[in-house]
Amino acid sequence: MNARVVPETGTLLLPQPYLLFLGDTTIAGFAKTAQGLRDWAGDKCVGEFALPAATVSTGLTPMTPAEAVAAGARALVIGVANAGGIIPPAWRPALVEALEAGLDIVSGMHVRLRDVPELAEAADRLGRNLIDIRTPPASIAIGTGRKRSGKRLLTVGTDCALGKKYTALALHRAFVGRGIDATFRATGQTGIMIAGSGMPMDAVVADFEAGAAEMLSPDAPADHWDVIEGQGSILHPGFAAVSLGLLHGSQPDVFVVCHEPGRAEMLGTAGFGVPPVDDIVDLTLRLGRRTNPAIRCGGFSFNTSQLDEAEALALMARESERLGLPVGDPVRQGAGFDALVANCLSA
Amino acid sequence: MNARVVPETGTLLLPQPYLLFLGDTTIAGFAKTAQGLRDWAGDKCVGEFALPAATVSTGLTPMTPAEAVAAGARALVIGVANAGGIIPPAWRPALVEALEAGLDIVSGMHVRLRDVPELAEAADRLGRNLIDIRTPPASIAIGTGRKRSGKRLLTVGTDCALGKKYTALALHRAFVGRGIDATFRATGQTGIMIAGSGMPMDAVVADFEAGAAEMLSPDAPADHWDVIEGQGSILHPGFAAVSLGLLHGSQPDVFVVCHEPGRAEMLGTAGFGVPPVDDIVDLTLRLGRRTNPAIRCGGFSFNTSQLDEAEALALMARESERLGLPVGDPVRQGAGFDALVANCLSA
Repeated sequence: MNARVVPETGTLLLPQPYLLFLGDTTIAGFAKTAQGLRDWAGDKCVGEFALPAATVSTGLTPMTPAEAVAAGARALVIGVANAGGIIPPAWRPALVEALEAGLDIVSGMHVRLRDVPELAEAADRLGRNLIDIRTPPASIAIGTGRKRSGKRLLTVGTDCALGKKYTALALHRAFVGRGIDATFRATGQTGIMIAGSGMPMDAVVADFEAGAAEMLSPDAPADHWDVIEGQGSILHPGFAAVSLGLLHGSQPDVFVVCHEPGRAEMLGTAGFGVPPVDDIVDLTLRLGRRTNPAIRCGGFSFNTSQLDEAEALALMARESERLGLPVGDPVRQGAGFDALVANCLSA
Repeated sequence: MNARVVPETGTLLLPQPYLLFLGDTTIAGFAKTAQGLRDWAGDKCVGEFALPAATVSTGLTPMTPAEAVAAGARALVIGVANAGGIIPPAWRPALVEALEAGLDIVSGMHVRLRDVPELAEAADRLGRNLIDIRTPPASIAIGTGRKRSGKRLLTVGTDCALGKKYTALALHRAFVGRGIDATFRATGQTGIMIAGSGMPMDAVVADFEAGAAEMLSPDAPADHWDVIEGQGSILHPGFAAVSLGLLHGSQPDVFVVCHEPGRAEMLGTAGFGVPPVDDIVDLTLRLGRRTNPAIRCGGFSFNTSQLDEAEALALMARESERLGLPVGDPVRQGAGFDALVANCLSA
């Protein structure tokens, strides 16, 4: 049940602020969603709620659902994953407690909240919403390619899971920091929770993929920037359909190529090497020109988490020289990232 | 309700032979599906069934559902469209009569058969299947890009609705006529009805688009050809996601570019010109190499229905000379089409 959509665009709309639910998690990596929400939407999180067995914390104030409601919370967000992608029986009394306290529940898990009978029963009894972010809004139109007003930036990648969301969030933050009127446009589960709205692009029926991206970044004032979270890679053998529909529908003026130096093989494939950034630039220009003839590459965002500082800076300087465009790491920040931001915004 | 899938592949499987239903149609263009079934699957059609008001005929023997069952029919196929894409009240008693006679019902319309209460009630009471071809099978895996055995041909296009299905059917027929072991692989509503199985690629969730195409053309003997019906165009601003997922998942050895000379604007777009065939060849090679490094263009299939014979032959000869590859029209047949078939099969 996705009861709410943004009236202006028809994309998903989440009730905020949030109480972050950590379940009984003892492995920090499983709480990445909660940590991402703390880092990028801290002003929309009133606190955290964990079962006694949990050992992981976001550092936010622990509180019960009733205390969270008193502090203004409107939804509990399931901020943890687990190995099976399910909602284990141990979590269910706590989730029912949240519904009874007056919170909706937001989930990005594969299992539907409504498929858990206790939750469906309690939500219906109490008039609460169970919101599965993987369920797209009901009404999406076919893409038309019509040019929209305002400016758009899209992050693209040489592979999945290497920093397209993080890069878009960091660029958006930098744009706003420079006084630019900008909106982060989310296309995946965690991004949608952070933004409080968005479009789950990987869950949209293929015929409507470009149309969904068109809905996500509607007409805007001429100097407004939409900073759009990319998905997959145009050269990923499994996910390129998502990437191309998102590219055509986003009609970006500028794209930033996200890459992890040293990664050898594409995620979830057998024997597919990660393509060179040059190939992604070239294909994105050729395909992107279809809906925006003025598309250009703003530069590169490298995920250098596997390198030490000196190696990372030397590599980015070399690649920037070779490619003739800025290369930055949004986690390390610094001069390379500043140059990337400036080049994206240059007319 | 899609009760049936091909055990080998998990793609849709339709009960055959068919009784073709023409409703109360008076406009021949609305009966294109029935006419396509007569032309390409005539051996799977026992007859036609029309309401008294209909003036259109396929030329097949008129019969009642009971007569069709006696002649071996297992399903009634809705072979007509209408302006609203709905199942009008006037059709419903005839469809219930078919269920009562022992036929399943197959539909490629936008409306779901089960959403018509009379049909749902009768099917449940009688144990019949209501099969909506736009509903993909439930279980589709993510694409992996793994190379499969056997040979594959994919038709691609400069736009929608200009002959990709017809070309694939004609190439398949020509291959079989030359003693080649070949299978037509259907990706759209009419194609699936003709083949009796297939995958509705435009209705698959985008994340699974390439995986669905992988299911459609499974491992096969080394000298077997799958001839795969293309969808959309890699340069269509609304539908390219479908085209790219189908290209990656089909991993074709050979592709044939379908084009309608003289068509100015892409279907359903405002102001998007039809791209030159050269651009489609180049992009299909670049993107298709990701899952089949040996991909090549076999030639071109032109829809010359708007030209007279002399103009059509002169244009195809000129373009064949310019492009260095065969150009044929599968409706006109003749030397150009024969050369196209031969070049697709050349090692």
